[in-house]
Amino acid sequence: MGNGIRIPFSFLLILVLFFHSTPQISATGYPINVWPKPTTFSWPEPRITLLSPNFTIFSPSNPYLNQVAKRYRNQFINEHYHPLVDPPVHLTGLPPLRSLDIKVTDASAPLTHGVNESYKLIIHSPYQTQTATISAETVWGALRGLETFSQLIYGNPPRLACELYIHDEPLFPYRGVMLDTSRNFYGVTDLLRLIKAMSMNKLNVLHWHITDSHSFPLVLPSEPELAKKGAYGEEMMYTPEDITKVVEFGMEHGVRIMPEIDMPGHTASWAEAYPDIETCTNMFWWPAGADLFNRLAHEPATGQLNPLTMNTYKVVKNVIKDVVSMFPDSFYHEGANEITPNCWKSNKTIQYFLAKNGTLSQLLEMFVNSTLPYISNQNRTVVYWEEVLLDPNVSVAASVLPQKNVILQTWNNGPNNTKKLVEAGYRVIVSSAEFYYLDCGHGGWAGNDSRYNQPPGTNLGNGGSWCAPFKTWQTIYNYDITCGLNIEEAKLVLGGEVALWSEQADPAVMDPRIWPRALAMAETLWSGNRDSTGMKRYAEATDRLNEWRNRMVTRGIGAEPIQPLWCIRNPGMCNTIQPFKLS
Amino acid sequence: MGNGIRIPFSFLLILVLFFHSTPQISATGYPINVWPKPTTFSWPEPRITLLSPNFTIFSPSNPYLNQVAKRYRNQFINEHYHPLVDPPVHLTGLPPLRSLDIKVTDASAPLTHGVNESYKLIIHSPYQTQTATISAETVWGALRGLETFSQLIYGNPPRLACELYIHDEPLFPYRGVMLDTSRNFYGVTDLLRLIKAMSMNKLNVLHWHITDSHSFPLVLPSEPELAKKGAYGEEMMYTPEDITKVVEFGMEHGVRIMPEIDMPGHTASWAEAYPDIETCTNMFWWPAGADLFNRLAHEPATGQLNPLTMNTYKVVKNVIKDVVSMFPDSFYHEGANEITPNCWKSNKTIQYFLAKNGTLSQLLEMFVNSTLPYISNQNRTVVYWEEVLLDPNVSVAASVLPQKNVILQTWNNGPNNTKKLVEAGYRVIVSSAEFYYLDCGHGGWAGNDSRYNQPPGTNLGNGGSWCAPFKTWQTIYNYDITCGLNIEEAKLVLGGEVALWSEQADPAVMDPRIWPRALAMAETLWSGNRDSTGMKRYAEATDRLNEWRNRMVTRGIGAEPIQPLWCIRNPGMCNTIQPFKLS
Repeated sequence: MGNGIRIPFSFLLILVLFFHSTPQISATGYPINVWPKPTTFSWPEPRITLLSPNFTIFSPSNPYLNQVAKRYRNQFINEHYHPLVDPPVHLTGLPPLRSLDIKVTDASAPLTHGVNESYKLIIHSPYQTQTATISAETVWGALRGLETFSQLIYGNPPRLACELYIHDEPLFPYRGVMLDTSRNFYGVTDLLRLIKAMSMNKLNVLHWHITDSHSFPLVLPSEPELAKKGAYGEEMMYTPEDITKVVEFGMEHGVRIMPEIDMPGHTASWAEAYPDIETCTNMFWWPAGADLFNRLAHEPATGQLNPLTMNTYKVVKNVIKDVVSMFPDSFYHEGANEITPNCWKSNKTIQYFLAKNGTLSQLLEMFVNSTLPYISNQNRTVVYWEEVLLDPNVSVAASVLPQKNVILQTWNNGPNNTKKLVEAGYRVIVSSAEFYYLDCGHGGWAGNDSRYNQPPGTNLGNGGSWCAPFKTWQTIYNYDITCGLNIEEAKLVLGGEVALWSEQADPAVMDPRIWPRALAMAETLWSGNRDSTGMKRYAEATDRLNEWRNRMVTRGIGAEPIQPLWCIRNPGMCNTIQPFKLS
Repeated sequence: MGNGIRIPFSFLLILVLFFHSTPQISATGYPINVWPKPTTFSWPEPRITLLSPNFTIFSPSNPYLNQVAKRYRNQFINEHYHPLVDPPVHLTGLPPLRSLDIKVTDASAPLTHGVNESYKLIIHSPYQTQTATISAETVWGALRGLETFSQLIYGNPPRLACELYIHDEPLFPYRGVMLDTSRNFYGVTDLLRLIKAMSMNKLNVLHWHITDSHSFPLVLPSEPELAKKGAYGEEMMYTPEDITKVVEFGMEHGVRIMPEIDMPGHTASWAEAYPDIETCTNMFWWPAGADLFNRLAHEPATGQLNPLTMNTYKVVKNVIKDVVSMFPDSFYHEGANEITPNCWKSNKTIQYFLAKNGTLSQLLEMFVNSTLPYISNQNRTVVYWEEVLLDPNVSVAASVLPQKNVILQTWNNGPNNTKKLVEAGYRVIVSSAEFYYLDCGHGGWAGNDSRYNQPPGTNLGNGGSWCAPFKTWQTIYNYDITCGLNIEEAKLVLGGEVALWSEQADPAVMDPRIWPRALAMAETLWSGNRDSTGMKRYAEATDRLNEWRNRMVTRGIGAEPIQPLWCIRNPGMCNTIQPFKLS
């Protein structure tokens, strides 16, 4: 309903002048849809054949790979996916494909940052051989290949493309999704479903923002009181067994689990168990009459760890010790975002310190110096949010954060901050809010907000959530995370991560809020967002995304639709601009 | 994450000056949460008692009421809802409540527009009597009372408030939700779940926008080709049996089903079966070089019924006949929105007509005159979208739309258009897009849209969907649909309706996209949005909504959360402004 799209005439004119260079629009440039689009995909004479009912996978002995192969074989045989658009190829009586041979060069390479995820997938003519092959350096590459293979299969009885050659590898080694399970709780089932969906899209890191000011759901053996008092409830906790389950499931899906225990800010929930290690607890976040700078927290729920209290470090070290033992990944995220000055300043001990010419930055330095080495010495690389270095009010010097031990995650000012961080020599994970924050656009969530009580006709601007507007899949797809960097600098960008902050999200909306937008980033970080001529390929991606989104829904992921179903049935007809050529 | 809320200092100052008049903030002003808040709710001495395990409902004989009572009794005994915040009342050994006596004055009054939905619910002290009573004029009022009763019960074993007096009735007789099942398909299960959720909130009309340009899912006995060729697929159709099921389920839940077969615009899908009754079929909606006025459709998918073709009326009358027979409600929605001039002008017969000094408005008049009386004569009131009268390019005179037979639904220009319509003497349903359109805010859905390929730092404004930004629950809650009308004019406003257009929605997101926002409107249209002093009560409503949203989730409706769970546990602490008094 409504006017569809309002496009200013001048804008349209400019586009008309350029439309002749628009890439060819077609529903599927090739009838078989793999997402992310593989780096190289060659199918010179589109042919398909049946999958033999006795289809077998031969794989080298490896605890994960054997399980993975079994799971995928089951999917190959039983999925029976029915594409939205019938691929224009037909069975021509070729011999069926009987088996898949997986070759792995180094079956012992673990799932770590930077592990080789490349693979070659070859399906010869069945007259030549009825065995397809996936060759990979590691088990994890083979897993990526198996996912691709699953997307080549469709129909009932299952059939797939043959005489096909794929060579595939990611542009970026770090391709993540962050989930905040503190503002609202998510059960283990939801986390497993998220991992499953990530794996379908070759996303490989689940950044689990487990704790924050609103709740502390993590049951830690050496600090049980934190969850006992700080979780939302007994049924809203993660036990060590739950963690094991999630980590294992991640492994089986090629997804690393990186824990974040945000500190020293964002720790109000710790005060339930340990009031004396926190400052400014249980106060109203924005005292009447205070300006932005003088509020006590960046959002409701006040409390920060006190770097001057000895007991703080006793508790923190217990927490770190337990988390390191529960999460085997080599990356550990310590947070350190959004230190609110007045929350510390409200504390008498800190006031005394500041009166003696101490600074808030020194407090943060104290905190980092007491924790970072402790974590690094346990064979972990520590990830922090960018403020630890870049915040204008409370930050530490680069000397406190050794580049070899520290990775920084950026979320403000798009590529500008990425550039600052790589120029300072740090490896970077890009989560620029302007593009990658999935929570934006549903309005402000604080209550008693008279901005939503305006007379009709008031211009509501972008709607009020701090990072509005909503980031569409196209916005996410088009983001070049190394924009403005030279080649050397770009090498320091490990990859990117979309983030779902949960002030207005929980299991009821997790799937539609994350999908399909996260998979837009998944393709861009795996094989890019440009076609072979170097043009942005979001137009061509639309129908592929429509088809893939539908397949994910049939696989149990409640992804939001991006267009009416009519659009993929009528390729190019739902574009803003008339296609030059319709295929 | 992020800065939470950015509020300009001057704005804050103004609010600080006024905050002393902010209503008392409390999680639940009274521990028992009923949504919508009843008109009158009196519980002088908060007391609770158990529901007897043999709890019985006595109701007059009525086919619907007996079924309804049985369903509710089952819910009373078995729901065992656990509130987010434990109500601060305790069992004190009062005798249990043993039964509910339903008294209905006119058990034969059907479910129609304007039927009396009021009820009185009295639960005396159990020492006085262990029987509660619901007294209502009609069965439908009793149903509203039963829903309220269900929300007074919580816990395991179930207990409820007693010594309580409720007198409740709606401000507006028409309280609707519109669902578009043409742009994307929704199964019968989803429709039934929607009706269930509406009934929980005393919403009473499901405006079913069944067909449109993208698909025609309705199987009509006298025009089977329309669905056969125009539906998305065999599994994406509604048979007459499906319709019966939906209508009956609606009855059992006090929800009327109003069908809309949009015409003469928005009918591209009809061309699959009947190409010759449509104009401008299968063309690109916005031809290269055309300006806004000269596009062929308001959004992708082109085609309008040709008012000059005889066969058009043959088909249309068959459609109307079947729809009237399948949908017993007295309201029939004929659509008539968004006639795109060039779509008609592209047709040779119409060009000839226009060359002879005919006008497009005359064509619409021809169409309305050929259909409106036909529908009215079948004992239906016809609803149209406002453009049929107000569109600057293609509209009809008021004389063509007799006020006694026609209701107009407004969606543009907020209360300004409402005023125009009531001034012209029409009854109005308010769906102002600025407040009530649920699809807004997720960006434009057309493909190949280079507006989403902007350099970082570009101001993306409100995000691109035509009616952005996203309408928050607070925006919806605060809308006064009779704003600017005098008392006589306001009498013509029948009520309001939120609308979910489905270009970017389908069953995967139906629940979170509609809820809880639709229930914000539900309360405002039932008992208003102001407290007893006349102040807007959205602040006080926040925690009640948090609690009620949670209850709906436990009842199987995937409503989106509006805040972290922490907020309702810490009443008032998530407000933008510090509460003057915390209770």
